[in-house]
Amino acid sequence: MALTQANQTLLERRRKALGPAYAHFYRDPVHLVRGEGVWMWDDDGRKYLDCYNNVASVGHCHPAVVEALHTQAQRLNTHTRYLHASVVEYAEMLADIMPGDISVSNIVCTGSEANDLACQIARKVTGNTGLIILKDTYHGATTLVRELSPAIRPEPCPDYVYEIDVPDTYRGPGADDPAAFLAHHKDQIKTAIGKLQARGHGVAALLIDSIYDGPGIFAPPPSYQRELFAQVRAAGGLIIADEVQSGLCRLGDHYWGVMDSGVVPDIITMGKPMGDGHPLAVTATTPDIMKAYVDKGGEYFNTFAGNPVSAEVGKAVLRIVEQENLLSHVKETSDYLMTRLRVIADKHPIIGDLRGKGFFIALEFVRDKADKTPDGDACLTAVEWMKDNGVLVSRIGTEGNIMKIRPPLVFAKEHVDLLVETLDRALLTL
Amino acid sequence: MALTQANQTLLERRRKALGPAYAHFYRDPVHLVRGEGVWMWDDDGRKYLDCYNNVASVGHCHPAVVEALHTQAQRLNTHTRYLHASVVEYAEMLADIMPGDISVSNIVCTGSEANDLACQIARKVTGNTGLIILKDTYHGATTLVRELSPAIRPEPCPDYVYEIDVPDTYRGPGADDPAAFLAHHKDQIKTAIGKLQARGHGVAALLIDSIYDGPGIFAPPPSYQRELFAQVRAAGGLIIADEVQSGLCRLGDHYWGVMDSGVVPDIITMGKPMGDGHPLAVTATTPDIMKAYVDKGGEYFNTFAGNPVSAEVGKAVLRIVEQENLLSHVKETSDYLMTRLRVIADKHPIIGDLRGKGFFIALEFVRDKADKTPDGDACLTAVEWMKDNGVLVSRIGTEGNIMKIRPPLVFAKEHVDLLVETLDRALLTL
Repeated sequence: MALTQANQTLLERRRKALGPAYAHFYRDPVHLVRGEGVWMWDDDGRKYLDCYNNVASVGHCHPAVVEALHTQAQRLNTHTRYLHASVVEYAEMLADIMPGDISVSNIVCTGSEANDLACQIARKVTGNTGLIILKDTYHGATTLVRELSPAIRPEPCPDYVYEIDVPDTYRGPGADDPAAFLAHHKDQIKTAIGKLQARGHGVAALLIDSIYDGPGIFAPPPSYQRELFAQVRAAGGLIIADEVQSGLCRLGDHYWGVMDSGVVPDIITMGKPMGDGHPLAVTATTPDIMKAYVDKGGEYFNTFAGNPVSAEVGKAVLRIVEQENLLSHVKETSDYLMTRLRVIADKHPIIGDLRGKGFFIALEFVRDKADKTPDGDACLTAVEWMKDNGVLVSRIGTEGNIMKIRPPLVFAKEHVDLLVETLDRALLTL
Repeated sequence: MALTQANQTLLERRRKALGPAYAHFYRDPVHLVRGEGVWMWDDDGRKYLDCYNNVASVGHCHPAVVEALHTQAQRLNTHTRYLHASVVEYAEMLADIMPGDISVSNIVCTGSEANDLACQIARKVTGNTGLIILKDTYHGATTLVRELSPAIRPEPCPDYVYEIDVPDTYRGPGADDPAAFLAHHKDQIKTAIGKLQARGHGVAALLIDSIYDGPGIFAPPPSYQRELFAQVRAAGGLIIADEVQSGLCRLGDHYWGVMDSGVVPDIITMGKPMGDGHPLAVTATTPDIMKAYVDKGGEYFNTFAGNPVSAEVGKAVLRIVEQENLLSHVKETSDYLMTRLRVIADKHPIIGDLRGKGFFIALEFVRDKADKTPDGDACLTAVEWMKDNGVLVSRIGTEGNIMKIRPPLVFAKEHVDLLVETLDRALLTL
């Protein structure tokens, strides 16, 4: 659908006032004005099923979140240099759902800040500066974490960073052979550690995802995670689990996707889903690591982070997650979604692979299933067609050929039905 | 006042859940539960006059801000990948109050993110990496801007950073001689540029404050700013005006303190006061600089920043600033405040210096006025006594001997009277 004149004008005003760095989804952007649960409405009253926005974790404009925000905003919004119960209660609620010894929360405002602080902590505690990341990943937009985000960094990889292969179960080495897959990635991490040590950086941390979004939504097998963790720890590095996207029940088995590995990381970062849209993020770690950080001169203060309003919003989100049993809801609904998507993937030759976990799913568009050649144009056409027919998804991958399905946690079976039927119709148009 | 048992317990819970990196004001922290205008209340119902919090710029819990927050939170809270009018309207309102060609806003969530992005832009646009900052300043807590924050960085100054002297008008070189003062600082900036060029970094930017908080609240004279700006620009560097603290009318003559110099910088960063407590910050620059940044491969996206709720909050704050004529209010009330403080400073020999501008004021505590030896203990005693008697101020400086007065913008003459009378009584107890 072409933009209305009013929206064309708004887009031009936006380009002027926000500048050229701001990109938008779709050939023509959607002008959204209202949200409720898994539904969004545009300025013309058209209704869309939201199959993309993880930030609206407990549903757009959840009344209990709005109520918590409003009530506290009327009372007091200040910083953590004063004593206040809300931020303490929020951190305690987080401690209750974090694995192992992880029980200390540093509240920040964005996922970028969470990952940046995690790296600061790892570097100070280990005394090393080297950081291991995976190719094509994204960890945020501060100067440091942008350097750790090959997905958006045009510059060469800095000397203190080493990038290892993504656990690509579709095209990567050993994709069809679990033993060869593990051997390849064992070798990758060994090389990374050796290189960083040889360059004099040592290993401060391995920054991992529980599902690799940017490179194409790959959920690494537990044996892979365990192997990487063990090698990095043996080299004196910490494990930072970037749960900014995958955290808060999204993968269906645990609150934090990294726990699929059965191994507790040293630091967990959280962001997008934590505030149902409100800026709220966390760098959580163990008391021992936090003590070592402070003993070595580390400190942290963030004027806005941990304010009572954000803390009450965070508490409301965690209460809803528990009261609405969203972890088991995601598991059950995802099983249904994957079963229905499997039928679609088998029916349409253009779908080369269906993968992912929980509510974080990829459909890979290919010219044919044998040669796996990416078909970005077909994916774009399908994504645009679905938008025009009331279903919001997105596409990713260096070739733009991967449809990304990542709905709010409250996405239910009736929404699965609408998504799958619209997808089926979209694929029939190709 | 000693902590109650309940607050002692809350503090212990806080130490466990938030960890040892969290510091608090005062020997025993104040447990604040409510705010309204320039007033705050603790959990025991005691009322405090807030002479410290710049974040609550238009007053704690301003009803129009709360209403804007609530209304939009009920409608939609999403990101800038979709089209939405609120963020465009907010950026346009900012463009109307920014100087010169500065008219493009990149919305971020915190002052740290604003300064970090400003440096990214400056580095990409100039092709240089060197950054000039002032000693003992603070610009934020990401990995990069922490390195630009000697006030909190225990590590040595990195190679790409050069720190110049603060324009210390009390103890610094040329404090009593304007010509010598200017000559000293001319030489400082010249040396900085030469060193960074010799090290191969060149000059990406000079990161300046309009009032130097951390080193002791020094408002640099216009001639000083103009000299620094000219030299840095001649060397190919940009001027980043960190208005996170001093911006939004705080200094009384202009919306942005840097305009006291009469020279328009290249980038203005904004933060603390912009959302009346809500996380909202901005990196603003010219269309030409933003175009050059994007042409060279730069981009920016921040999931939470520029969401419709934050934008509506930002709009509400700007409307209030205009409707309540806060710029002229600050000017007029500050004149009254300074006049009354001058009397106090002259009366009490322990006050060595009264300085600052607008609603950003320092009282320096010294053993005697001649030798200017800092008296941190006396300042601490006064700050604590004032807190116990219902007035919130803070202290800064490497010796902790500088009382910092930095109230909300809506601070009025009757509040000045209470502040000054309480201060007078505090000083009489010393």
